[in-house]
Amino acid sequence: MRYAVLGTGIVGRTISAKLASLGHEVVIGTRDVDATLARTEPDAMGNPPFAQWESAHPEVRLETFADAAAFGERVANTTSGMVSVKALEAAGAQNLDGKVLIDIANPLDFSAGMPPSLDPVNTDSLGERIQRSFPRARVVKTLNTMNSQIMVDPSRVADEHTVFVSGDDADAKSAVTDMLVSFGWPEASVIDLGDITTARGAEMLLPIWLRLWGALGHTDFNFHIAGARSGA
Amino acid sequence: MRYAVLGTGIVGRTISAKLASLGHEVVIGTRDVDATLARTEPDAMGNPPFAQWESAHPEVRLETFADAAAFGERVANTTSGMVSVKALEAAGAQNLDGKVLIDIANPLDFSAGMPPSLDPVNTDSLGERIQRSFPRARVVKTLNTMNSQIMVDPSRVADEHTVFVSGDDADAKSAVTDMLVSFGWPEASVIDLGDITTARGAEMLLPIWLRLWGALGHTDFNFHIAGARSGA
Repeated sequence: MRYAVLGTGIVGRTISAKLASLGHEVVIGTRDVDATLARTEPDAMGNPPFAQWESAHPEVRLETFADAAAFGERVANTTSGMVSVKALEAAGAQNLDGKVLIDIANPLDFSAGMPPSLDPVNTDSLGERIQRSFPRARVVKTLNTMNSQIMVDPSRVADEHTVFVSGDDADAKSAVTDMLVSFGWPEASVIDLGDITTARGAEMLLPIWLRLWGALGHTDFNFHIAGARSGA
Repeated sequence: MRYAVLGTGIVGRTISAKLASLGHEVVIGTRDVDATLARTEPDAMGNPPFAQWESAHPEVRLETFADAAAFGERVANTTSGMVSVKALEAAGAQNLDGKVLIDIANPLDFSAGMPPSLDPVNTDSLGERIQRSFPRARVVKTLNTMNSQIMVDPSRVADEHTVFVSGDDADAKSAVTDMLVSFGWPEASVIDLGDITTARGAEMLLPIWLRLWGALGHTDFNFHIAGARSGA
């Protein structure tokens, strides 16, 4: 399968490396290829510059958002949530048409300092906004509720834990579930919340996730829905 | 210990019955005692009228918000979140001064239909609003993230699961943790998120809780933070 992963941050790198390790062809998309490669300093989170990561992952190409999206049969959005719609506009609606669009981003707004708030929130979500902006893409919100290492290696958390999927297209959710299973997620750990409006709830997990990080002092935790099958 | 439980809904009844069964003196507070007792129809959730419940729990008295709060050494807020501040104003700031105020309410706004939204949300929370409105009360947000049967009988969920506490007063959180342990919660299942601003995250679990109810078809589930202790 050909994947386009939009976003060169830690989530994009981690997802790309995992997909490539599973034998997929992966292209990472960025706004400005030269600018991304020219960076020599770690990012705000302390991650090494992209060029350094790329030299260790020569199988993953870096292209523009549009070239990456045109290449991908599936597209993953790992851009910063506040700029995701702009990044997808740069990718081009025609390059998203009919494709499964895996939305992993969170609309965290740091403009008023820490902790960030969410925008949109409550009566809307980034997942819905993307689906409305690209009505012919098949948006599936998933994986946004945990750190990137756990996304691709759920065994990092010893206990049973949960990954959510939200989306309007059942086939797209099924395809994404297969991808999650290929990442190591037991199928029973995947909870289909319903249509794309349920992305509100998944995105609204971020505030407590951030506070749990502070309270626990690490990010190797995840949400688990205990008793999910008890009433089945 | 003397407890005032404000609110005659299913949460107030369940918490009151549990506290009474543990040997505490419990008074339930309501806006209008006569009106509450005069109801003969089930409420919107299908719960029997209060008078019917009261006849099965004669050890729990019904009084006004103010009389109940004056009686209680501790006060639990189980009113509907949209009217909680008004209910606590009726209880009277002088009757809350210095007391542990256990806030179990969620500010669910049903005015625009289903699913409800939260108000306040994101940059504020009901827990914070209550603490600001009653600065001499010692507010602890807890138990708002699960159905009422699980609150008082955590063994209903077979797997390990979590209850959160948020508040500015460490002694108050410790007292509430002891109450939770008396309800059957293992102390290791209690996660102290931090100050009262962390109530935002706990309240923002409600949207996904409501969608999980829909997706799973039952409410005998709860959030668990898997791997919470892995980095310790």
